[in-house]
Amino acid sequence: MSKKDEGENMAAWLLGIKTLKIQPYPLPPLGPHDVRVRVKALGICGSDVHHFKTMRCANFIVKKPMVIGHECAGVIEEVGSGVKSLQVGDRVALEPGISCRQCDLCKSGRYNLCPKMKFFGSPPTNGSLANKVVHPADLCYKLPENVSLEEGAMCEPLSVGVHACRRANISPETRVLIMGAGPIGLITLLAARAFGSPRIVIVDIDDCRLSIAKSLGADETVLVSTNIQDLSKEVELIQNAMGCGVDVSFDCVGLNKTMSTALNATRSGGKVCLIGLAQSETTAPLTPTAAREVDVIGIFRYRNTWPLCLELLRTGKIDVKPLITHRFGFSQKEVEDAFETSAGGGNAIKVMFNL
Amino acid sequence: MSKKDEGENMAAWLLGIKTLKIQPYPLPPLGPHDVRVRVKALGICGSDVHHFKTMRCANFIVKKPMVIGHECAGVIEEVGSGVKSLQVGDRVALEPGISCRQCDLCKSGRYNLCPKMKFFGSPPTNGSLANKVVHPADLCYKLPENVSLEEGAMCEPLSVGVHACRRANISPETRVLIMGAGPIGLITLLAARAFGSPRIVIVDIDDCRLSIAKSLGADETVLVSTNIQDLSKEVELIQNAMGCGVDVSFDCVGLNKTMSTALNATRSGGKVCLIGLAQSETTAPLTPTAAREVDVIGIFRYRNTWPLCLELLRTGKIDVKPLITHRFGFSQKEVEDAFETSAGGGNAIKVMFNL
Amino acid sequence: MSKKDEGENMAAWLLGIKTLKIQPYPLPPLGPHDVRVRVKALGICGSDVHHFKTMRCANFIVKKPMVIGHECAGVIEEVGSGVKSLQVGDRVALEPGISCRQCDLCKSGRYNLCPKMKFFGSPPTNGSLANKVVHPADLCYKLPENVSLEEGAMCEPLSVGVHACRRANISPETRVLIMGAGPIGLITLLAARAFGSPRIVIVDIDDCRLSIAKSLGADETVLVSTNIQDLSKEVELIQNAMGCGVDVSFDCVGLNKTMSTALNATRSGGKVCLIGLAQSETTAPLTPTAAREVDVIGIFRYRNTWPLCLELLRTGKIDVKPLITHRFGFSQKEVEDAFETSAGGGNAIKVMFNL
Amino acid sequence: MSKKDEGENMAAWLLGIKTLKIQPYPLPPLGPHDVRVRVKALGICGSDVHHFKTMRCANFIVKKPMVIGHECAGVIEEVGSGVKSLQVGDRVALEPGISCRQCDLCKSGRYNLCPKMKFFGSPPTNGSLANKVVHPADLCYKLPENVSLEEGAMCEPLSVGVHACRRANISPETRVLIMGAGPIGLITLLAARAFGSPRIVIVDIDDCRLSIAKSLGADETVLVSTNIQDLSKEVELIQNAMGCGVDVSFDCVGLNKTMSTALNATRSGGKVCLIGLAQSETTAPLTPTAAREVDVIGIFRYRNTWPLCLELLRTGKIDVKPLITHRFGFSQKEVEDAFETSAGGGNAIKVMFNL
Repeated sequence: MSKKDEGENMAAWLLGIKTLKIQPYPLPPLGPHDVRVRVKALGICGSDVHHFKTMRCANFIVKKPMVIGHECAGVIEEVGSGVKSLQVGDRVALEPGISCRQCDLCKSGRYNLCPKMKFFGSPPTNGSLANKVVHPADLCYKLPENVSLEEGAMCEPLSVGVHACRRANISPETRVLIMGAGPIGLITLLAARAFGSPRIVIVDIDDCRLSIAKSLGADETVLVSTNIQDLSKEVELIQNAMGCGVDVSFDCVGLNKTMSTALNATRSGGKVCLIGLAQSETTAPLTPTAAREVDVIGIFRYRNTWPLCLELLRTGKIDVKPLITHRFGFSQKEVEDAFETSAGGGNAIKVMFNL
Repeated sequence: MSKKDEGENMAAWLLGIKTLKIQPYPLPPLGPHDVRVRVKALGICGSDVHHFKTMRCANFIVKKPMVIGHECAGVIEEVGSGVKSLQVGDRVALEPGISCRQCDLCKSGRYNLCPKMKFFGSPPTNGSLANKVVHPADLCYKLPENVSLEEGAMCEPLSVGVHACRRANISPETRVLIMGAGPIGLITLLAARAFGSPRIVIVDIDDCRLSIAKSLGADETVLVSTNIQDLSKEVELIQNAMGCGVDVSFDCVGLNKTMSTALNATRSGGKVCLIGLAQSETTAPLTPTAAREVDVIGIFRYRNTWPLCLELLRTGKIDVKPLITHRFGFSQKEVEDAFETSAGGGNAIKVMFNL
Repeated sequence: MSKKDEGENMAAWLLGIKTLKIQPYPLPPLGPHDVRVRVKALGICGSDVHHFKTMRCANFIVKKPMVIGHECAGVIEEVGSGVKSLQVGDRVALEPGISCRQCDLCKSGRYNLCPKMKFFGSPPTNGSLANKVVHPADLCYKLPENVSLEEGAMCEPLSVGVHACRRANISPETRVLIMGAGPIGLITLLAARAFGSPRIVIVDIDDCRLSIAKSLGADETVLVSTNIQDLSKEVELIQNAMGCGVDVSFDCVGLNKTMSTALNATRSGGKVCLIGLAQSETTAPLTPTAAREVDVIGIFRYRNTWPLCLELLRTGKIDVKPLITHRFGFSQKEVEDAFETSAGGGNAIKVMFNL
Repeated sequence: MSKKDEGENMAAWLLGIKTLKIQPYPLPPLGPHDVRVRVKALGICGSDVHHFKTMRCANFIVKKPMVIGHECAGVIEEVGSGVKSLQVGDRVALEPGISCRQCDLCKSGRYNLCPKMKFFGSPPTNGSLANKVVHPADLCYKLPENVSLEEGAMCEPLSVGVHACRRANISPETRVLIMGAGPIGLITLLAARAFGSPRIVIVDIDDCRLSIAKSLGADETVLVSTNIQDLSKEVELIQNAMGCGVDVSFDCVGLNKTMSTALNATRSGGKVCLIGLAQSETTAPLTPTAAREVDVIGIFRYRNTWPLCLELLRTGKIDVKPLITHRFGFSQKEVEDAFETSAGGGNAIKVMFNL
């Protein structure tokens, strides 16, 4: 450990709209089941960008200065007295949400819905874009030797795709439609492939992103416009690209239009998984649900996904490295640049800090 | 067989908007696996009324004269050469849809979604408001001794409630909200009770219907207005009436507003079942789906429900008789009166023909 | 609180085979999320009797003195600093197992299988036949006003039946066979009825127990012998009593013979739930499993059952009071008598202490 | 159609133990929904060998001469008047079982359990080792261009593995143990891999078969003896080879010993799928089921598997060609030789006829 590492803990505080400052962040005491982690890699998520640009995301509002960031991995610096599963020097990926472990939802295994969840960088809980954080040991997952710290940080977005594939029961007999080729759409593509989907069609308004999707393994891509009147033509294009019925659609955008397309393109008895929520209130026409039993399944974060993500990375069934398009260090200027880059969209998919 | 029975077969033909005529209806030949049934009881469904009033229902359009009706029971008059399970004189309830038995959906047990379904009174297939019909024997279910022909006809609407309770997995630990106290809402109430739901709250805009719901076993009723601005107050009223979280909501109305209420009133990880479709295109705000994993489950008709319905009626776990509010004979005038009565709503719940 | 209550905490220690002594039991310190409970009612379980008679139960061996007992309810005497859900004076039923809350099985909602489970009266963890115990607050469930402390203690055995009905997916369309009319068989009967089973046949070698089963609502009873050669005749008797296929069988005995009967009596595609384990190694002939997809489902204790049990008791859907056949106080002599009574079988179903 | 094709239809009749004769087999008339198929490839199954050697298999007894064989593919020669999905010249794989399509099990999608099933080569229904057969069109699945007729015939055994993987819910997070490296064990290995299993350990008593398993993609192999006393050591070897818990075990042998090993090697809450049945009455010690909720799932044939099998073959996710070790023509001598070869075991995995 260098002198610098032993110095004051610094973190990126969100102070106001588009105002991030690196300032001291005193760590809480280390409990018996906690570990202290030196953060080494952290990716910027769409929700971080929402917070950065608007001081809110969905119903979560930033009311006071908050450390931002939640997709991270690092190295164990100290372990609590009761921790046996980890030791100093272990490289770990961090699951960012601490649930209460006591409510009905926690006890029945749906802890992602725990009403008392404390989640890195979701107000009012501080995030992990910091030199160091303290976190429960059982939420820190040891990285296999051949998985890098950056890949460890990618377990967080990958978890969303994995949770979606689990809830939708993706298997070798599930033909998949993905609406949106942004970071979550691309991650879901990788996850659906790993779950065995034999055919994946992906849709976007940006040809460049569709090229990336193709390079990551999409069977077909469909370029569409934002023109809502093209709906039935869009459905036809998708169904032609699929060449058969769509069993499961993942809406990784969450606009009225994307949900409408997904619902109409999915076969009778299929499912639409709603992952993204681009609008403050996405509404969808539910005739396919009532008339053809096309169910709508919600995806909120994830649960019990880290071990599987690490196994998928270890065995090479999923390669997330091509998604990391930009890298920044942890200085005031670089933090600002990184968020501007991520907010800018364009060819930036995953923007990563190396701390 | 009496002389009268041997006479010409007559049926109620829908000829145009609000134009029903009793006219001859030549029966198709009796196949080896078919039976000929003397129809004795037939109930009017909301979809029949839609056809009657508008010559269409959802995407189904009446383009040429069609016999109307599909909720029926009767007595076997003749059996095909290969029929062993039934004999002349047996009292039977008829499942109205004939699926292809060969497509993927049929073979995997979801035959209600069969794209080749032929369904009584759903254009272009003739219905069963007729003296006699020919139907596959395996879709005619023998009535237990203590179940009347009228109750047999009620298996059809009851099947919708049963299918909904099955898809939503209603059990003794499922608190249920029902939007709408019309025929389907009330039937769903009875079904949810039979599936063991410990607490059922039902919502309507009509105090009289809520009284009926109460008499049929609803734990609490909530009277609401059609004013869309009352949404959050309405949700609060419902949650107070429930006294705890709503696990499953059944929307038996299918308006934007009822879906919105149902979605917001349901607990995290719960489900909303969409049964009715009052609008040509019901849209719903899906934030609860994305942010709290409140899934939306579609209910289209039913599958494999008659044996269970008959068992529920036989054992008295469900009593559908209070739902039959009006009875008519099978004359030109009475058929017209019956449809006007059913279309009028008000205190008419189930209007039944005795043929 | 009386003087006596404030005195030294006493408990029933199992010191050797058939050797129980009431001796002091110093309580552990009260953690921030714990409560201290004055135990008021405790029922004797078959596993307690096994421990009493043999110092072991299945793979669990009593190697040093251990407080016995685990089916209990009581009154809160003190709450930890972080406890908000309970207060002094609350009447509560205690879930006896404390899982680690951190392993994969805990996090995925199957905490009953947690390898680090600490369970009242399962060696080496002390039980709850004591004046007072300290227990996590979230495992103490407040009793509804109309549920007695004895009924609260009965939540534990009832949980086994509830967990079995959940795993077997009992509903109004499930015909149920129960092998064994002992305490667990009778409890399972009550639970299956509450889950809506329309027809329940119960089998035993003791006519007296079958009479009790009948009085508790079994539709039919079948008296059998222990003669293994009667197997096919026994299956025939059961199927005649059912009058149709058996959808789910619960083996609450766990002998080779009862499993064999259950497997052969169950319809193709049905399930056999193995609850009891009367032999140290029960073996079963699995031809029905391979040739007719009769699956065998294991039931180990329960998970997430107390809220449902309390609701079933509150609403009167289940009445466990008839199962309590004997009551004893908490003196040395009465403890000995109580265990001898429970061990004696015969007309003793549930033996209860009032402390 | 050539002259030769128009000649008398010949089939391999099983006349007695180890007595197969090629004799004329008059075809039934072609129904409106049937097709006539010129059989071109047919594989020998273990059940065919049982019939050949003992005139019985499980409860099915050959009481009169019967055409043997059921794993086949061929070319359409004629289609019934109502057949639209197929035309003369189409290459098709045949699903061998014709269910009644009318019973509860058929209608609910579990048609493999239909009590009226007529299945090629399962007494008293004639099989398909014949020049030509007549079969329902919807049970004949068109082969993709790049799938050979032999591969088409392999859809039948592959279906067993696919059905097992579906019932066991194999996914990228399921570690799999396979007992037995015979044809079904190897097929199940291929299927489990296609369903995404990240780690597969396979066990056999024959080192040569384990080598084949390794070459087909098994991660680890474990050589065991038939000595029943080695059970706990065998479990330890398996768990070491897996390096973590076994989530699902497939017993493709079906001996008391293999089931015992599988049950004990599987983690708490896991599943054992029983596929093979080597003994007339396999019994298994069910302590892991009762004490650790290791469920036992039965696999009987398959349902709705052909489309998925063909897709897996088309996309190359599964390659069954290495399993075909021997080929024979359709002459009296070759038929006899082929069955002797298959019965001999050894290095014969799948013995195939080219007709």
